[in-house]
Amino acid sequence: MLSGATARVPMQTVSDSTVRRLSAYYRLLEEASATGLNVLSSADLADRAGLTSAQVRKDLSYFGSFGKRGRGYDIERLKVEIRRILGLDRLWRVALVGAGNLGSALFSYRGFEKQGFQIVAIFDRDRRLIGQVWRDIAIRPIEEFGEAAAAAGVEIAIIATPADSAQAVADVVVAGGVRGILNFSPRPLFVGDGVWVRNVDMAIELESLSFALARRRKRP
Amino acid sequence: MLSGATARVPMQTVSDSTVRRLSAYYRLLEEASATGLNVLSSADLADRAGLTSAQVRKDLSYFGSFGKRGRGYDIERLKVEIRRILGLDRLWRVALVGAGNLGSALFSYRGFEKQGFQIVAIFDRDRRLIGQVWRDIAIRPIEEFGEAAAAAGVEIAIIATPADSAQAVADVVVAGGVRGILNFSPRPLFVGDGVWVRNVDMAIELESLSFALARRRKRP
Repeated sequence: MLSGATARVPMQTVSDSTVRRLSAYYRLLEEASATGLNVLSSADLADRAGLTSAQVRKDLSYFGSFGKRGRGYDIERLKVEIRRILGLDRLWRVALVGAGNLGSALFSYRGFEKQGFQIVAIFDRDRRLIGQVWRDIAIRPIEEFGEAAAAAGVEIAIIATPADSAQAVADVVVAGGVRGILNFSPRPLFVGDGVWVRNVDMAIELESLSFALARRRKRP
Repeated sequence: MLSGATARVPMQTVSDSTVRRLSAYYRLLEEASATGLNVLSSADLADRAGLTSAQVRKDLSYFGSFGKRGRGYDIERLKVEIRRILGLDRLWRVALVGAGNLGSALFSYRGFEKQGFQIVAIFDRDRRLIGQVWRDIAIRPIEEFGEAAAAAGVEIAIIATPADSAQAVADVVVAGGVRGILNFSPRPLFVGDGVWVRNVDMAIELESLSFALARRRKRP
């Protein structure tokens, strides 16, 4: 049976990898329900995720007790719970800073909006981009970030600028009251306490491929 | 002392998260050496990575014994070892399929080449893109993938196409002999045994931000 909404452990003890796995579970549950399933055992979910079922049960147990022993998880209810845990049960207003190729690709990326992340403001410093309108959103100069982000209720910023301006942008964004930054620039950002930064390093995934391929080649 | 080049455990038992952490350790070692350090203890490395030192020692112990008890790791030697473990001690020839905004952003992304992933061929199906030349590489029709990829020695493909063509592209790519796929399309790909796929889901990182922000808001 599904438990109440209270977390069993303080946030500090929930690791990043647990949170990542919750995101992965959510996607696997969506896939399973798209194929008509209603219930999934922890062993099934573990199989799909490539994990042990002990790991799955442990991850979910941080947040309450889901599922009945021997009956598996009710997929729709578990999806609702995971959305709530991940903060996806609401809309997040997001600012995109950097409207170059990467920014444009991220703006078109459907995965964000599907999970409740809505880009509501776009900023750049390039005069050729400022004033362009992307799906009803006019690109504004980065100097207007504070005012415009507050007006649009922005809580998260995506930084998709070149590396050499990323830190200056982060300073502007934090000064504008934003407490969550998704950083696509290949440079670590320094921010004060109470601000969360996630870095997307696209080479890391390639490295897990080269790891697998390099080892395969050594085993004829 | 640094051990020899043999792995202690079969690849199957090394989890994806261990491989990811190795990639993270490598970046932290690079940062440390950029600030002039030569040696790092497992406790220091763990601090920088936000992990326990037991986890760090365990991850590295899969592959041999690095560092001397009480003296820490020799940063340059550990970097060399991790590059070797991750298969980064060589060049990987990569094909980019999809030359839209995302493909263009990935092509300009410096992080790939820095780690030895070199884009040597580009494919699309859009006649307006075919024939364009990006840094000496002519964009070719996807129909020519097999021949062109073999000629260029491609081992890894990056798929940056819309979701609805991703599976067809994956089939072409695998038929062309590629055994590693980095998938940026928001759709899981089905491939046969012996082919590795990594999916980059850019929303997952945003979800770890919303997780942190949502919980912060509940704690005044």
